[in-house]
Amino acid sequence: MQRPIKLREPIPASGKGKRASNVYREAAEIMCHKGYEATSMNDIAEAAGLTKAGIYHYIRGKEDLLFEIMMYAMDNVDNGIIAPAREIPDAEQRLRTIIERHTMNLIEGVGAVTVVLEEMASLTPAHRKTITARKRTYFEFIRETLNHLKSEGKLRDLDSNVAAFGLLGMMVWISRWYRRDGRVPPEQVMREYVEMGMNAVLK
Amino acid sequence: MQRPIKLREPIPASGKGKRASNVYREAAEIMCHKGYEATSMNDIAEAAGLTKAGIYHYIRGKEDLLFEIMMYAMDNVDNGIIAPAREIPDAEQRLRTIIERHTMNLIEGVGAVTVVLEEMASLTPAHRKTITARKRTYFEFIRETLNHLKSEGKLRDLDSNVAAFGLLGMMVWISRWYRRDGRVPPEQVMREYVEMGMNAVLK
Repeated sequence: MQRPIKLREPIPASGKGKRASNVYREAAEIMCHKGYEATSMNDIAEAAGLTKAGIYHYIRGKEDLLFEIMMYAMDNVDNGIIAPAREIPDAEQRLRTIIERHTMNLIEGVGAVTVVLEEMASLTPAHRKTITARKRTYFEFIRETLNHLKSEGKLRDLDSNVAAFGLLGMMVWISRWYRRDGRVPPEQVMREYVEMGMNAVLK
Repeated sequence: MQRPIKLREPIPASGKGKRASNVYREAAEIMCHKGYEATSMNDIAEAAGLTKAGIYHYIRGKEDLLFEIMMYAMDNVDNGIIAPAREIPDAEQRLRTIIERHTMNLIEGVGAVTVVLEEMASLTPAHRKTITARKRTYFEFIRETLNHLKSEGKLRDLDSNVAAFGLLGMMVWISRWYRRDGRVPPEQVMREYVEMGMNAVLK
């Protein structure tokens, strides 16, 4: 069995460094609660402990910030989910790792992921294209894993597109309902999602 | 076995009649594509084939319309999912019916449901409270069904809250990916969602 992933594992920062990633994280939490439209640059500066001039050291403006938050969230998908899962030759174990890591990524960093899911319409067309392509890469990685399982005769009688979307839906929805102060501990949520996800698609 | 539900089964109209429900449906489709903020009363009137004065016969304004669309979508949940499923004494068959009908409801009427999922923040607090309570009723109906299955020893070792959210996430996500002109026919999507959902939670 794959070693269980550690809780509170540090999320790798994007290229712009730790301070910038803190700004994205704070901004994501606010946007997640207030919505992108209602969030001002002042709100973000205040939450990040920066002056209004200071915040412009990190970003050019609100839309740019939204894009950076999404790039940061997608970096976490690349580094925290896809890269480690790609190292695993066994498709069943790879799928298990994807579900474990995606679930944990959502539980640990709800804000940024929620913004990626909810605020796509607020991006400029060029930025939207970039984020959509990165999401697509992740989707295709999951679908390939399912096709691999199909070739081994382990997949239920499912279209691999439909199955990949089913799994993704089950997982991404965590950002809508999970509360860090809730009754069910993170490890249990992860374990139960693995149980549900694996049995949903595997014979 | 439960009779399969008919495709294109007429969705029961809300109290305000068929014409009003057509207006909600058209408005929902536009809001779904353009977003609530970007949709004007002119856009809606045009799509519904009404004059700008005519549309105010059906609604008081844009927020009121958003609320009516959501009430209409939740009427469909009550009449199209909860009411028929409640008639089924066997919990396993009841869960299957919930998944069949919810999946079909999303495939047939993507617009209104998407609006319910995406635009909650645009409601007035009183309206939001009403819709949230109706969603909660549906969630609790699913959770009760899972608890019933647990008491029969049929549920996997899952918290019924986590399992209910897992199933809901899997289903609601259909409104994000499903395209009516896509490759996979609606009946197949429904069948595969039943397969995934039942196996995700049942032993």
